[in-house]
Amino acid sequence: MTNQDSQPQNEESTAGDVATAAILAIGDELLSGRTKDKNIGYIAEYLTNMGIDLCEARMVSDDEDVIVAALNELRAKYTYVFTTGGIGPTHDDITADAVAKAFGVEIEHNPEAVALLTKRIEEGGRFKMNEARMRMARIPVGADLVENRISAAPGFHIGNVFVFAGVPAIMQVMLDAAAPLLKGGVVMMSETVESRVTEGDFAPLLGDVQGRYDDVLIGSYPWFRNGEYGTNIILRSRNKAALGEATGEVRGLLKELTKTLKMNRKK
Amino acid sequence: MTNQDSQPQNEESTAGDVATAAILAIGDELLSGRTKDKNIGYIAEYLTNMGIDLCEARMVSDDEDVIVAALNELRAKYTYVFTTGGIGPTHDDITADAVAKAFGVEIEHNPEAVALLTKRIEEGGRFKMNEARMRMARIPVGADLVENRISAAPGFHIGNVFVFAGVPAIMQVMLDAAAPLLKGGVVMMSETVESRVTEGDFAPLLGDVQGRYDDVLIGSYPWFRNGEYGTNIILRSRNKAALGEATGEVRGLLKELTKTLKMNRKK
Repeated sequence: MTNQDSQPQNEESTAGDVATAAILAIGDELLSGRTKDKNIGYIAEYLTNMGIDLCEARMVSDDEDVIVAALNELRAKYTYVFTTGGIGPTHDDITADAVAKAFGVEIEHNPEAVALLTKRIEEGGRFKMNEARMRMARIPVGADLVENRISAAPGFHIGNVFVFAGVPAIMQVMLDAAAPLLKGGVVMMSETVESRVTEGDFAPLLGDVQGRYDDVLIGSYPWFRNGEYGTNIILRSRNKAALGEATGEVRGLLKELTKTLKMNRKK
Repeated sequence: MTNQDSQPQNEESTAGDVATAAILAIGDELLSGRTKDKNIGYIAEYLTNMGIDLCEARMVSDDEDVIVAALNELRAKYTYVFTTGGIGPTHDDITADAVAKAFGVEIEHNPEAVALLTKRIEEGGRFKMNEARMRMARIPVGADLVENRISAAPGFHIGNVFVFAGVPAIMQVMLDAAAPLLKGGVVMMSETVESRVTEGDFAPLLGDVQGRYDDVLIGSYPWFRNGEYGTNIILRSRNKAALGEATGEVRGLLKELTKTLKMNRKK
């Protein structure tokens, strides 16, 4: 979209009314294609519903230097950063260390996390506490835990960075647990106008409408399947009145256009 | 994973044996969560099968400055950059302009692209050529087209940047068309060892194996569903012998461990 003002992307923007965010998805398995990421889309939708603008997402490998550099860039730029992946007990789980390094703090066996893990393990009776499991209690000094209602091993947050698991079900309960800490904004509302015309038929008309509504973002999403085609127009705004007006205009122009195209076909 | 050498991430690495890549997925609809990206995982798997290392993926909004900055950073860093999205006919399709700007070249109505689009439109008989559709023939000067066998409107490549559509079916035929131009490497082979134990039981043992195999990447992927749990160990290498050896070791230690755990449970 051309309307950049509505989606602030730079440092000054974080001081504004709208909270911004970035996701850092961590894991070699994502970049090899073995695991298809399901977290970015989920978090994106969740944040949109809270009125937080997700401005960027990155997927990086299990490489400490790369993670530290990305973390430091993103946390300076956006209100919140959410990481997924890399907080399990194995040698390739290096997210907590990378976060500690990015913030320049030590990492320790967090007593609260140790207690949570020990309790869960003893209750279950199936597993034994050991060095590897203790690794999941290693948390940067100064961080607060994020509850994991599924498997106890917690996420954490430090500064504006939230560190979640990579397994989608666990990431989702962590996001629920963290949500009350996030400052949402006026929620972005949206309207969808479905049509059976192609973008090529209405692009300039749609551009005109966009030009007249500064605070409405208008996106155009063509689809085709089984020989059928069409375009859905999605309008998004925090201004209900403007959203309604712009949506009315788009509906009107598409109705008119569909009629014209039908007439042309009959000729 | 801890073995950084096998997945080169910096400029020098592009001169090495292994081609590297980044994906830049463009579109507000991805960041709002309305559209769930399906392209990154697909391209990731495709490149892995060609022996090209995908090192990073980014998702950015329809903001020209942001796209230009990301493009210039990524194309300097990796052998190839693949973009998806933003090459349709509407006002929010700004990828071609951003690519031209990143390369410092003009953008023009590419005669070959105009011919392709005109031919397809005339054949179909359903649509008319117009200014908006002509927009899809706007290609940076010096770029070569990438064929689109589905809807004619082409992708293109310039320098080491490949520009594809966002609609997955179209992106996929464009990737097929571009593949012969890519220099793959020795394909990364992989082995999966399935287990019904948890990461916490074998993490240090697995770390030991990783420590002894420099050219094997060992990843550990826990899963649980319906009350069942386990961990799949995935080993990846370009060295078949090392991969076989390391896989044998991992199988052995998991077999041993499963036996020990069963005995402990009986006690």
